[in-house]
Amino acid sequence: MTSPLRDIMYPASIAVWGASSSPMKMGTIQLVNLLESGFPGEVFPIHPEEKEIVGLRAWSSVNEVGRPVELALLVLPNRVVPEVLEECGRAGIRRAIIVSGGFKEMADDGGAERERRILEIARRHGIRFIGPNCLGVLNSAVPFSTTTIPKPPMGGGIALASQSGAYTAMIYPLLRRMGASIHQTVSVGNEADLDLVDCLEYFAGEESVRAVGLYVETVRRPREFVRAARALAREKPVVAVYVGGNEAGSRSSLSHTGAVAGDDRLYDGLLRQSGVLRASDMDEMLDWLWALSSQPPLEGNRIAVISNSGGPGTSLAYHLERAGLKVPFFSAGLQERLRGLSSPLAYTGNPIDLTFDTNIFVFRDLLRELHGSGEVDGAVIYGIFGSDWFVNLRKRFPGIDGFVEQLKEAYPEFLRALMEDARGKPLLVMSFLGQDSDAISFLCSNGVPVLRSARRCASALRALRDYAIVRERLRREEG
Amino acid sequence: MTSPLRDIMYPASIAVWGASSSPMKMGTIQLVNLLESGFPGEVFPIHPEEKEIVGLRAWSSVNEVGRPVELALLVLPNRVVPEVLEECGRAGIRRAIIVSGGFKEMADDGGAERERRILEIARRHGIRFIGPNCLGVLNSAVPFSTTTIPKPPMGGGIALASQSGAYTAMIYPLLRRMGASIHQTVSVGNEADLDLVDCLEYFAGEESVRAVGLYVETVRRPREFVRAARALAREKPVVAVYVGGNEAGSRSSLSHTGAVAGDDRLYDGLLRQSGVLRASDMDEMLDWLWALSSQPPLEGNRIAVISNSGGPGTSLAYHLERAGLKVPFFSAGLQERLRGLSSPLAYTGNPIDLTFDTNIFVFRDLLRELHGSGEVDGAVIYGIFGSDWFVNLRKRFPGIDGFVEQLKEAYPEFLRALMEDARGKPLLVMSFLGQDSDAISFLCSNGVPVLRSARRCASALRALRDYAIVRERLRREEG
Repeated sequence: MTSPLRDIMYPASIAVWGASSSPMKMGTIQLVNLLESGFPGEVFPIHPEEKEIVGLRAWSSVNEVGRPVELALLVLPNRVVPEVLEECGRAGIRRAIIVSGGFKEMADDGGAERERRILEIARRHGIRFIGPNCLGVLNSAVPFSTTTIPKPPMGGGIALASQSGAYTAMIYPLLRRMGASIHQTVSVGNEADLDLVDCLEYFAGEESVRAVGLYVETVRRPREFVRAARALAREKPVVAVYVGGNEAGSRSSLSHTGAVAGDDRLYDGLLRQSGVLRASDMDEMLDWLWALSSQPPLEGNRIAVISNSGGPGTSLAYHLERAGLKVPFFSAGLQERLRGLSSPLAYTGNPIDLTFDTNIFVFRDLLRELHGSGEVDGAVIYGIFGSDWFVNLRKRFPGIDGFVEQLKEAYPEFLRALMEDARGKPLLVMSFLGQDSDAISFLCSNGVPVLRSARRCASALRALRDYAIVRERLRREEG
Repeated sequence: MTSPLRDIMYPASIAVWGASSSPMKMGTIQLVNLLESGFPGEVFPIHPEEKEIVGLRAWSSVNEVGRPVELALLVLPNRVVPEVLEECGRAGIRRAIIVSGGFKEMADDGGAERERRILEIARRHGIRFIGPNCLGVLNSAVPFSTTTIPKPPMGGGIALASQSGAYTAMIYPLLRRMGASIHQTVSVGNEADLDLVDCLEYFAGEESVRAVGLYVETVRRPREFVRAARALAREKPVVAVYVGGNEAGSRSSLSHTGAVAGDDRLYDGLLRQSGVLRASDMDEMLDWLWALSSQPPLEGNRIAVISNSGGPGTSLAYHLERAGLKVPFFSAGLQERLRGLSSPLAYTGNPIDLTFDTNIFVFRDLLRELHGSGEVDGAVIYGIFGSDWFVNLRKRFPGIDGFVEQLKEAYPEFLRALMEDARGKPLLVMSFLGQDSDAISFLCSNGVPVLRSARRCASALRALRDYAIVRERLRREEG
């Protein structure tokens, strides 16, 4: 059976309520972002008076449109949501995103009653919807985005379902700076109809989604959640952040989405039973998802560390061991072969310390040798840099421009080969450099996560190992 | 007594060995970066044959210079270091930075003997030096940098002393992206002469240094370390990362700087006794140092959370409580006053959830009210954004350009007022935005740390609280 979310995530046409010629209204902002996101389908702004909105013909009612409308996007004051939803139902629209707030999360103000009312209307008309009190969705495969934040870095294999709208949209600039991207997001809001369980079922059927992240303040259907999560986690890694589990957290989540949070350990158990890895915060979850969506699971716990600098090498060794992974001392035979590839000052025991060397091409030879040895299950490299490093030097030695340009052209080939040599085994890169470094941005945009500290690399490799263990367990229990 | 490091950190003239007209040599790279760092003093490249190096007159020997040379920078093969150091001594140079590697860290290869020899030469001539096997120093107050990495983000109040050269220099791009900067760094290398203890004593006398970070693989003089660290920590926060304490970490640090690492718990105790806060990794240390160098210590544990979005607010509440801080429920009176300042949809219990609102100016009114109430000791804000947010909107509504420009002009005044209202109490901002957001970059460059997750904000506030407790303890024990 096709998930009801499928139609919401792949609409051919969208009617938008709440946009107008006033630029500072939320509905207008979401309509503009929808258009800028490259949505190829038809968009129909609905407005009682206006005839044209951001260059599109506006319609006084959805009945006037005269063409099929697959999805309704409602960014309206909550008091008018019921009548518009009725209008949608009568016009034959069967999917909706209700952004409007002021429902169950505002219990004192009749919000729960309002939420029951829209649910009743939706049921009567067979409308399935996301929200209320959400930010909408993003799908790179269409592409489209209904959120309030401009310029999402679309692509990759990460999908998010979140009880916080902010966490599905405001993270775009962070992802872009990291060099990561986002494939699909669903802001589930109050989950009056579709909820996290529906998202889990939907993502299971989306081939291009390779890792799923959840931001959880409450699980409304625990039994179904466990079932759906286990089914999904057998095929793809699932990670969750849960922050409702202490006094301040639970007070806050109640006011946020009307969620009644449970004890932290209770949720820990629930997530473990579900085969879901638990990350402590959004930033850790994004690191993990980046690794999990781009790298294979870590099938053993032996990690090779290659560094051209002692501090990061030592830090990686320390944090990998703290994370329960091994940084095995290499055999005499392997060390001899590694020595043949590197400078005489290098240490080859693991971490491999090349000492500072401007020849980054040696990383490739080392990695190939390591993966041929059978002594390691995954690798992390510190010391890859790009042509930006020569910025000062070029000012004083214009003669090296040719050399730097050659280097620039050689990087993609070299980095591609590096990734090929790692094939089948996880590879992470640690670097303090950002997207303005050509080598780093090439790695990131070609599926190698680059993380900014030893601790973060170790944590992401641990997640790759944990997923291998979880998947094995789930498949064994199933079989 | 003036620290011997003072003369190394404030040289009027530097002689450089190892630079040449070959751009790919380490010495050349460091000379170029020195010049590009804006060093206002005299620079004398010393080279046996070349007459001009990167546009400077070169000298065949330091004896020929005929002007006083305060600092020698040696980037030479290790076998010629002794004779050059002799030459320096005879020429009356009393301070040196020895970048060259291949000393104690290469025990098998006669390195320890070589290190003893240079130490003997230095003692005989009264030369005090940093290194060998280091990257040199940076001092924004001069300004100058001898490191291999271009474009250090100079300024601020953070000083670093590090047994890893990489960690004093390769972090520049990370700091720049964070919006933070670096005031002074010392890469101590093998510490044949000057060591971490000397750095602690030196930083105590540097008024513009407001927080000190250490990257430690070993403490060579534990007794003196404890004494110097305690004296420093009574006046300024000191943070350390120690990564030598497990099997892989200690193996790696031995090959790195010849350091014999000790048990993790042993070092934990040593650092605690010293009044030094221990961070788990470089990234955490930089967050803490940024907060500690720009914000006052946290004198109580009650934190106000102001957010315009539920997820980040709930996450902040959760992580603050996990870090042992309080997110107190505000009194009825305070809540009433807060409600008068915010939208009717807002929740005022703490975290304050403004729900999404494009009016960020309300943050200021709320913060002033909170700090006037006596109910909080520090605050963290989520939801500040800049004019970049309007990028899509401006394309479709060129009419709002004037409004956005007005907003842009209003930001600095507003943000300055916000910082003033927080005066005397720590203020952090959580945001996923980067330096391309004008509001965020203004905050960062004016001393408000902006951190990218709830966990990181909670961790930095915990460090501000821990330092208040440590300082109190040290002053009590002294008194």
